[in-house]
Amino acid sequence: MNLILIEASEVDVQGNAVLTGARARHIHDVLGAKPGTSIRVGVVNSLRGRGLVQEVTDSRVVLHCEFTEAPPPAPRIALLLALPRPKVMRRLWAQLSAIGVGRIILTNAAKVERAYFDSHVLKPEVYRPYLIEGLQQAQDTAVPEVSIRKQLKVLIEDELDILFPYGGRLLADTSTWHRVRDLMFNDPNMRLLVAVGPEGGWTDYERDLFQRHGFKPVSMGPRTLRADTACVSILAMLNEAITAG
Amino acid sequence: MNLILIEASEVDVQGNAVLTGARARHIHDVLGAKPGTSIRVGVVNSLRGRGLVQEVTDSRVVLHCEFTEAPPPAPRIALLLALPRPKVMRRLWAQLSAIGVGRIILTNAAKVERAYFDSHVLKPEVYRPYLIEGLQQAQDTAVPEVSIRKQLKVLIEDELDILFPYGGRLLADTSTWHRVRDLMFNDPNMRLLVAVGPEGGWTDYERDLFQRHGFKPVSMGPRTLRADTACVSILAMLNEAITAG
Repeated sequence: MNLILIEASEVDVQGNAVLTGARARHIHDVLGAKPGTSIRVGVVNSLRGRGLVQEVTDSRVVLHCEFTEAPPPAPRIALLLALPRPKVMRRLWAQLSAIGVGRIILTNAAKVERAYFDSHVLKPEVYRPYLIEGLQQAQDTAVPEVSIRKQLKVLIEDELDILFPYGGRLLADTSTWHRVRDLMFNDPNMRLLVAVGPEGGWTDYERDLFQRHGFKPVSMGPRTLRADTACVSILAMLNEAITAG
Repeated sequence: MNLILIEASEVDVQGNAVLTGARARHIHDVLGAKPGTSIRVGVVNSLRGRGLVQEVTDSRVVLHCEFTEAPPPAPRIALLLALPRPKVMRRLWAQLSAIGVGRIILTNAAKVERAYFDSHVLKPEVYRPYLIEGLQQAQDTAVPEVSIRKQLKVLIEDELDILFPYGGRLLADTSTWHRVRDLMFNDPNMRLLVAVGPEGGWTDYERDLFQRHGFKPVSMGPRTLRADTACVSILAMLNEAITAG
């Protein structure tokens, strides 16, 4: 944890917060904090700042906090992902919030097993701590918005213009020759939505659906990657491409 | 497994191979193969081809194989990585071989705990199956070379010119402004070695050591990422940058 995230409801009007559980253990055991130690803190979906340790044991830490620093710029990339196997999805949550993704839309596709949608890894009480873990790694405070949709066609045709109204749409594909570096990003505030398919790939019907709704194909390279590796790869490539020159 | 990898010693002179364990289960349960089914196969560090199923149960599969296809081009990037926590390293092996890395050099650094080097995740009998798993994902056959070094200074000063004699050297760093896209890759056969630091970063002494030995700093973006996310990110960015235009 490079930054300890605190829920707004945990901070009283004087700026004091009482932390227990994993965060207290981390502050005590890993940071080795003593009364008087100053540590980096942030409020979920709000400012960052410093917390002055008042009391500390491995099960309870009292901090006096001041929040004065803006979080990093809001991520400009959103991810539309065909739901991978639960084991892979579990590994992905923290990596996505660490890299910085504004919105995560998980969807069904022909080559996604419907049973994956019953996994507990899609329950907010399970995935939110992973998202928080990634934010603490990257010193961000903004929790990505998560949307879960079981019908790709309804999502693309009826809902996507509301979930993602502005910006470019890309379809990551191993079978195309269009490369990230050849994309034109003239607008320094450009927003992007990138769709990443299931390991078995999109069907022709799905590719056509995406293309009719403005998604332009872009290559992730020639190798077939597991969904978590594929997502981290394309997000890294796009982040590097859209960073203002 | 998008390709079933077979050791050369498992194939007899007629091209027949008997597979047991996880590969047999995969061929039977996931691929649903029957006698006569043709599946994609490859020989470790050699050619790819097709295997015609002769017999199949969930514990034993007999294949008649023909190997006629070259593996993908050899990866042009090597990774020098400050050894991450064993849990993170375990997750990384398969991703590295899937992305395509010719050589993996794991090293000590000031902010690496020495106890990490005692982890069983550094034993070939533990990591090789992970490397094979990643190759099967990416349909490659070439197992990355792995070198493990406990002394960074000795590695850089005395051994690196032997392990990595030709090509560019990069030091991935969150504190530099040099970007991947600004690197010049004029040679279409350019080889690259990229060094990725521990989560706590390199020390000034280490940075200086790298720079005196020809490593040029390059940014991975402003966010502090876990070692596995950082490696996948920088490798994706560099692969995209060096792919022949």
